[in-house]
Amino acid sequence: MKVVTFGEVMLRLSPEGYYRIMQSDKFLATFGGGEANVAVSLANYGEDVSYVTKLPNNPITDAFIGQMHYFGVNTDDIVIGGDRIGVYYMEKGASQRGSVCIYDRKHSSIADADPAEFNWKEIFADADWFHFTGITPALSDNMVKACKEACIAAKEMGVKISCDLNYRGKLWTRDKAKEVMTELCKYVDVLIANEEDAKDVFGIEAENTDIYGGKLNHEGYKSVAKQLTDKFGFEKVAITLRGSISASENDWAAMLFDGKDYYFSKNYKLRLVDRVGGGDSFGGGLIYALRNYTDPQTVIEYAVAASALKQSIEGDFNRVSKSEVEKLMGGDGSGRVQR
Amino acid sequence: MKVVTFGEVMLRLSPEGYYRIMQSDKFLATFGGGEANVAVSLANYGEDVSYVTKLPNNPITDAFIGQMHYFGVNTDDIVIGGDRIGVYYMEKGASQRGSVCIYDRKHSSIADADPAEFNWKEIFADADWFHFTGITPALSDNMVKACKEACIAAKEMGVKISCDLNYRGKLWTRDKAKEVMTELCKYVDVLIANEEDAKDVFGIEAENTDIYGGKLNHEGYKSVAKQLTDKFGFEKVAITLRGSISASENDWAAMLFDGKDYYFSKNYKLRLVDRVGGGDSFGGGLIYALRNYTDPQTVIEYAVAASALKQSIEGDFNRVSKSEVEKLMGGDGSGRVQR
Amino acid sequence: MKVVTFGEVMLRLSPEGYYRIMQSDKFLATFGGGEANVAVSLANYGEDVSYVTKLPNNPITDAFIGQMHYFGVNTDDIVIGGDRIGVYYMEKGASQRGSVCIYDRKHSSIADADPAEFNWKEIFADADWFHFTGITPALSDNMVKACKEACIAAKEMGVKISCDLNYRGKLWTRDKAKEVMTELCKYVDVLIANEEDAKDVFGIEAENTDIYGGKLNHEGYKSVAKQLTDKFGFEKVAITLRGSISASENDWAAMLFDGKDYYFSKNYKLRLVDRVGGGDSFGGGLIYALRNYTDPQTVIEYAVAASALKQSIEGDFNRVSKSEVEKLMGGDGSGRVQR
Amino acid sequence: MKVVTFGEVMLRLSPEGYYRIMQSDKFLATFGGGEANVAVSLANYGEDVSYVTKLPNNPITDAFIGQMHYFGVNTDDIVIGGDRIGVYYMEKGASQRGSVCIYDRKHSSIADADPAEFNWKEIFADADWFHFTGITPALSDNMVKACKEACIAAKEMGVKISCDLNYRGKLWTRDKAKEVMTELCKYVDVLIANEEDAKDVFGIEAENTDIYGGKLNHEGYKSVAKQLTDKFGFEKVAITLRGSISASENDWAAMLFDGKDYYFSKNYKLRLVDRVGGGDSFGGGLIYALRNYTDPQTVIEYAVAASALKQSIEGDFNRVSKSEVEKLMGGDGSGRVQR
Amino acid sequence: MKVVTFGEVMLRLSPEGYYRIMQSDKFLATFGGGEANVAVSLANYGEDVSYVTKLPNNPITDAFIGQMHYFGVNTDDIVIGGDRIGVYYMEKGASQRGSVCIYDRKHSSIADADPAEFNWKEIFADADWFHFTGITPALSDNMVKACKEACIAAKEMGVKISCDLNYRGKLWTRDKAKEVMTELCKYVDVLIANEEDAKDVFGIEAENTDIYGGKLNHEGYKSVAKQLTDKFGFEKVAITLRGSISASENDWAAMLFDGKDYYFSKNYKLRLVDRVGGGDSFGGGLIYALRNYTDPQTVIEYAVAASALKQSIEGDFNRVSKSEVEKLMGGDGSGRVQR
Amino acid sequence: MKVVTFGEVMLRLSPEGYYRIMQSDKFLATFGGGEANVAVSLANYGEDVSYVTKLPNNPITDAFIGQMHYFGVNTDDIVIGGDRIGVYYMEKGASQRGSVCIYDRKHSSIADADPAEFNWKEIFADADWFHFTGITPALSDNMVKACKEACIAAKEMGVKISCDLNYRGKLWTRDKAKEVMTELCKYVDVLIANEEDAKDVFGIEAENTDIYGGKLNHEGYKSVAKQLTDKFGFEKVAITLRGSISASENDWAAMLFDGKDYYFSKNYKLRLVDRVGGGDSFGGGLIYALRNYTDPQTVIEYAVAASALKQSIEGDFNRVSKSEVEKLMGGDGSGRVQR
Repeated sequence: MKVVTFGEVMLRLSPEGYYRIMQSDKFLATFGGGEANVAVSLANYGEDVSYVTKLPNNPITDAFIGQMHYFGVNTDDIVIGGDRIGVYYMEKGASQRGSVCIYDRKHSSIADADPAEFNWKEIFADADWFHFTGITPALSDNMVKACKEACIAAKEMGVKISCDLNYRGKLWTRDKAKEVMTELCKYVDVLIANEEDAKDVFGIEAENTDIYGGKLNHEGYKSVAKQLTDKFGFEKVAITLRGSISASENDWAAMLFDGKDYYFSKNYKLRLVDRVGGGDSFGGGLIYALRNYTDPQTVIEYAVAASALKQSIEGDFNRVSKSEVEKLMGGDGSGRVQR
Repeated sequence: MKVVTFGEVMLRLSPEGYYRIMQSDKFLATFGGGEANVAVSLANYGEDVSYVTKLPNNPITDAFIGQMHYFGVNTDDIVIGGDRIGVYYMEKGASQRGSVCIYDRKHSSIADADPAEFNWKEIFADADWFHFTGITPALSDNMVKACKEACIAAKEMGVKISCDLNYRGKLWTRDKAKEVMTELCKYVDVLIANEEDAKDVFGIEAENTDIYGGKLNHEGYKSVAKQLTDKFGFEKVAITLRGSISASENDWAAMLFDGKDYYFSKNYKLRLVDRVGGGDSFGGGLIYALRNYTDPQTVIEYAVAASALKQSIEGDFNRVSKSEVEKLMGGDGSGRVQR
Repeated sequence: MKVVTFGEVMLRLSPEGYYRIMQSDKFLATFGGGEANVAVSLANYGEDVSYVTKLPNNPITDAFIGQMHYFGVNTDDIVIGGDRIGVYYMEKGASQRGSVCIYDRKHSSIADADPAEFNWKEIFADADWFHFTGITPALSDNMVKACKEACIAAKEMGVKISCDLNYRGKLWTRDKAKEVMTELCKYVDVLIANEEDAKDVFGIEAENTDIYGGKLNHEGYKSVAKQLTDKFGFEKVAITLRGSISASENDWAAMLFDGKDYYFSKNYKLRLVDRVGGGDSFGGGLIYALRNYTDPQTVIEYAVAASALKQSIEGDFNRVSKSEVEKLMGGDGSGRVQR
Repeated sequence: MKVVTFGEVMLRLSPEGYYRIMQSDKFLATFGGGEANVAVSLANYGEDVSYVTKLPNNPITDAFIGQMHYFGVNTDDIVIGGDRIGVYYMEKGASQRGSVCIYDRKHSSIADADPAEFNWKEIFADADWFHFTGITPALSDNMVKACKEACIAAKEMGVKISCDLNYRGKLWTRDKAKEVMTELCKYVDVLIANEEDAKDVFGIEAENTDIYGGKLNHEGYKSVAKQLTDKFGFEKVAITLRGSISASENDWAAMLFDGKDYYFSKNYKLRLVDRVGGGDSFGGGLIYALRNYTDPQTVIEYAVAASALKQSIEGDFNRVSKSEVEKLMGGDGSGRVQR
Repeated sequence: MKVVTFGEVMLRLSPEGYYRIMQSDKFLATFGGGEANVAVSLANYGEDVSYVTKLPNNPITDAFIGQMHYFGVNTDDIVIGGDRIGVYYMEKGASQRGSVCIYDRKHSSIADADPAEFNWKEIFADADWFHFTGITPALSDNMVKACKEACIAAKEMGVKISCDLNYRGKLWTRDKAKEVMTELCKYVDVLIANEEDAKDVFGIEAENTDIYGGKLNHEGYKSVAKQLTDKFGFEKVAITLRGSISASENDWAAMLFDGKDYYFSKNYKLRLVDRVGGGDSFGGGLIYALRNYTDPQTVIEYAVAASALKQSIEGDFNRVSKSEVEKLMGGDGSGRVQR
Repeated sequence: MKVVTFGEVMLRLSPEGYYRIMQSDKFLATFGGGEANVAVSLANYGEDVSYVTKLPNNPITDAFIGQMHYFGVNTDDIVIGGDRIGVYYMEKGASQRGSVCIYDRKHSSIADADPAEFNWKEIFADADWFHFTGITPALSDNMVKACKEACIAAKEMGVKISCDLNYRGKLWTRDKAKEVMTELCKYVDVLIANEEDAKDVFGIEAENTDIYGGKLNHEGYKSVAKQLTDKFGFEKVAITLRGSISASENDWAAMLFDGKDYYFSKNYKLRLVDRVGGGDSFGGGLIYALRNYTDPQTVIEYAVAASALKQSIEGDFNRVSKSEVEKLMGGDGSGRVQR
């Protein structure tokens, strides 16, 4: 049984190294998008996964589809048509200078797609898991409708649904996000969020505690997960915890709440190579782990180890194998040479 | 007195060398657009020139404006706003494999601009020449209106108008082009076209002769220039003559008709480095030469020599000086080392 | 029904541009090998194709398999194991300086493979065409055996067999090649050769005429094709005709003999970007055309146009689509910009 | 009213990444020089600024002037002539391996320039601030004279003068530096120095305390600033405080003394991308802040934040905007992605 | 009198920056191998040194020999012949992701060489020091024999012998390594090992103490050195102590035992640029220091400073001079700019 | 017996591909200089050769000396000291756009060297051939003196002298060149010149014929060689004949006059990769051939084939072996792949 992910993929254009945008006349050209990133992670771990989107008919799309095949992601349900693939310009930060993202994604094929173009009954034929993020409905009202139709179809067909809140302030307002996500979250089984999403989208903060003050506040995170679960009845809630020391160094950990107990992962001191896609690699790792492990602590450790590795890798995609994740989970984070 | 050019500029993304699109993970990132290319040529030759367009508020635009300043082009009349800068992907051909252009220019800031955003009376305050191409009105009905308003203001203020037909079949139909350009050409003093534009836009072909048969048909080109002038009353008509032997080798020449006599330039055997912008560099050379030389033969030789040099240079812009053009006109096309 | 190709693929390491080997500290790293190249061509044109080889268990192999998936080539029958993937160093020539190939392919997984590792009955289950080249049996006695077993299985199962003679003097002697290929050619339906292979392998030269003297000697080529057919009873013989003017410019054409008539293609004046894989792209084009066209002249024109395009493309693989080949066949070799 | 800066600019040649000089066959080619760096910083923040130097008549100079225009720096007062532009080779260090600078700046156009070539009355026509560094008079006796003439003209015209001591032991001796700078500092209003300059040039050290011992010795720095002010009557003294943990990590802070009070900035933990130009970006930030803010604490925080950002940017120039500096001053040094 | 080193050199292929293997289509191509690395270090410090190996007759070998000459290493005793130079693929790790080495070295010219091809009497004619590592005998039984013959000849001729244990589990088993190295170590005067080699090869661990537990366990290392000396009678034993915090940061130190006293070096906090060859640069520094300094503390400090510098340099070779090592030993590890 | 060459070597900085100077922020960094180029050619063919110059004490010089050792050129007589190594910027032309050279070589270590620093008696101890070009004395009066002293010493010691006229109008006037070269040529045995040098330096033109008119004028070249020999009594005169069709294509041939007969080489149609150093590679080939062949036709064919190959190679140095030259002489200029 396969996993289906649904959302927008963009051409990502990044200056080389730590150059600022247009400091030189070159861009590294890769692809990125939350749900595509999750699909690649899952394929790397050996899952059957199909990525659904809409893309224009041109050589850029051909290259993207080829890359999905490279990673083993099924593209049979990608709709071809529309005007354009979105573009985003990504400048990598360092030290005190943060990374910069400029989005040029309006009027993309997926944002302008007709919900009827996606036949969810067929798409979910062999599926048992559906994943999307809060970015997809933020693209357009058409996509709100498409996501809702997908969720309804999934529920009818017994397909489990995971959603990464992924609030993007440039795509919609908090009010609109709250309205839409409140509706969509009714269908969601597994919710993924970072340390700010719950507040941005639902206004949910830790009770009687300052969750953003100082260091990791375990009680605060537990409170947020509890409130989310109380409100929407999620089966599982996973929250990533990023401590941004600088654009070069981060702390990275996460918590899983299964409605009963709270499981905190170990914390990694990251030397960032490329943090974009870090959250998506967590999502990919989590979905894989939930499907293949039963112990909640193992699940959250797998997801965090996977996403720690991602952040040492250039590009949105997490180019790691299951055995590499397991090796890191098993404790070898010393970075010794593997001869 | 300055020259004003008006149109769209795009971010141009090209694979390195002769790679196909997305064959590797790098794009060379430069800017290009017919009227910007003409402005750069004119600035390189020492003319005062102002480039008018509309661009979004982001670092890509900052870089473009910085580049215009690098070349000495005035950007004071560029309007900042709107959604995006257009993008085009340019794959360089070789041998029998032609170059490929993919445009992603819909919904660009300039295409969606309100004609009222351009105050032509102010823009033409110090100007005595206005240049645009058939691409600008092809962008949108708004731009048809903007071009017409610009032409009317120019005529009122005694500003000479040049236009490069530049038919782009992906932007509009022949019928629409004919209708719009017939209206706009009423205002035009100097018309520039390549060997196919007159036919594509106005259906004008050589009488009683096959202008596309075999080699350079002087009589055919004369006939086309005569018909254009008879119809629109142009002061001057310049037609470029490209002989495409392969994507690596071209013949390159042009003809100028001043309403009375026909002047044919010498022919250059080009080894193409980058032919995009070749026609624009001809336009830039022609406008410069018409403003600075009186002898028609000199005018057409300058324009052709300038554009021959451009095609040996990477990128849309013609990075040559007046003295380099004059040297080539003077006969030294042997490519010896200048120590 | 699918095509199966069988042979060795190597990691190809090439200096950038026209650098000599190790002139700088970089190598472009791609893959190449006659039968893999043919498989990629066929996949690009839309054929079902499976590539069979043996490769070691490491990330280089993972990347190769990912690339085959990128192009849509089936890799299910690739055997994983053995010591190493062969490497070849390819220095691109220019002007009077010829290209240089250094092979480091001994002891590769495929050369050392046990013929029993390839279960031809299963491999050919859905196949109706089998392609190999003279390089495969030249790798080792094991591979002679494997090729023979494949041919026997193919014949039994009604699978058509094509073979590109591809004589490699560094892999075996002419005597050994003659002995082995004489045996294997008994099974071959479609023979492909360049202007020297027939002489190198079988000692077959044009009767009463100097086939290598001066320019294209049509009678000489016809004679060779006739002798080959008389000796082995091939259904079709295709011979490529390369005129090496310099390492930068070649003439390129071919002839097809169907046992009755001789069909000569048009001749292309090539500006070489990368000639390695040119013959393989001819083979790929020929197989595709034989499967999809009935007119022999169309068949040979397709194969030659396809391989002319390849030689304007970097790397062994022919990254062109069916429509691009058809467009060139249709006469547009002028290399104009496709806007 | 504009700022004028005066000094030498050089072509900077750096190996890529962490390569040693000539380890590979490439150099990154940018420009750098203390006063040009300050001019670029000021232009980026929106100040009118004119950069004065002398450069030879060749395409390298054309490129430099184009770059100044790119950043919006006025180049009208650059003198063209002389033999050459200086060159410096810059190898970036890492870990325990320090960066290496090799200067090839003798006989540069500016070093050999006649002081009479600079008409300070005209240059300062619209100016209210003049900035130079101790490098300029160190170039040659001609430049000592030019600096003195500039200072005298500035004082006469009511133009404020800032000077960065910037001692360069390869250009002159401590004795010569002391003699010249003692004379020039009479005219200076705002003095900038790093933690070693005061000692190198004037022999001024903290009284009764070891200013180079251990960590930031606030009392020592205060003593040095006080002594400098007592001796020369500076209006303001700013001292940068660099703690070199390794070539990869530095502490970075500064102190401002306004003749009455001492203002210490916050300290930044830098991950160095390129530390060359760090001091100059401090100077540029300081001049901007002194011209636009009144609160001394704000002034020193702006200057330090600006120069902290610079050290995360490749090249000598500080490619940051006013809003980026203000954002960092405002406390967000966590390097989060700016989506 | 010269030093002779003997072993295998390989072509090292590394992705650029932190890319994974085959993530892009480029490899950086350098050379590396323990004994060649030691030879280059020694030549850089001014020693006469000859590198002995066997390499095939092709342009890759020409380039390697040219590079040895570049560094001043004598290559007169390199034997030319055999099939191939080994290749290794080296992916640089970062953060928690360790570096990956893939070896393709089987059937290399040196592994397959006949011991009789090396005439040790002649090779050691002007030599007073012979260095090899445990990798050389691990290549093949032929190389076990060659090493033994070299050791015997060296002993006869009064040539001192140093050996770096360098256990490689992919080349031989611990049992085989123990057997062979026990025999060869009889001839060795100076033994070099890292913190794990003694256990891997000889099963020697610290008595009554956990040498791998927690931080630097001085007593444990002393115990190991003592046991090694007791068993083999080494004149000197040097052990490197690497603390792997992550693939980006390491602690680096070493200990020297002269049979009587134990000398611990200072510890360096390394920001890794390229750690491959770190141990070899320690060996090179140690041999140089033993030949040129008498104070054991100075010897170990030289070796550790040299190898700390290496790890800030790209490639296997330690491109540092004697004065750079001495400067770091002298305490300046702050990485300040050397202007 | 060795060859000695004497002159200036410079750091050559070239934009990548066909970029104009500073169009991008990268320069390829190699070395070049007439006499160094000749030395490398000779070393490649197997001659003992020593290169004499003066260079400053810095890492750039270290890299150059390392490179000379890479090629096998002896550097023992290079004097270390002085201020700087000269730099030249080389922009590669294409099509009608000629290459551009900008020299920044004034005040180089060699130009400012004291003639007494070169002890010719010692330098020529094992030499039987001395080569210099007209560039060396053009550098400074010191170098005129040094060249004369070298020539006198050579003559006294029976060392044969070859000189390439190599007129550089930017270094000296024709009058000064004539005066100096007339004096130096008294000592010269073998004179090398291109088609313009004899006229530029000595005012020698073909009698009664237009040597620069139209195509190869054999009689004209013979006349020039005869006049030169009559005037100076040269043993041999070799003249290269370049036909510049464009910056991309040249004809290339040469003539040798031995005082009696005239030998014209075959003509090569060159596709230029890098023509700089073409003349020097002719000189290197000629000297080698004069020392190793007796047949004058073979001599001139060797020199022309060698220099034809050079022009297909990036950089000043001719990276070809003797066998590659001989292969081209033997007729294979077809540029076929050498597998």
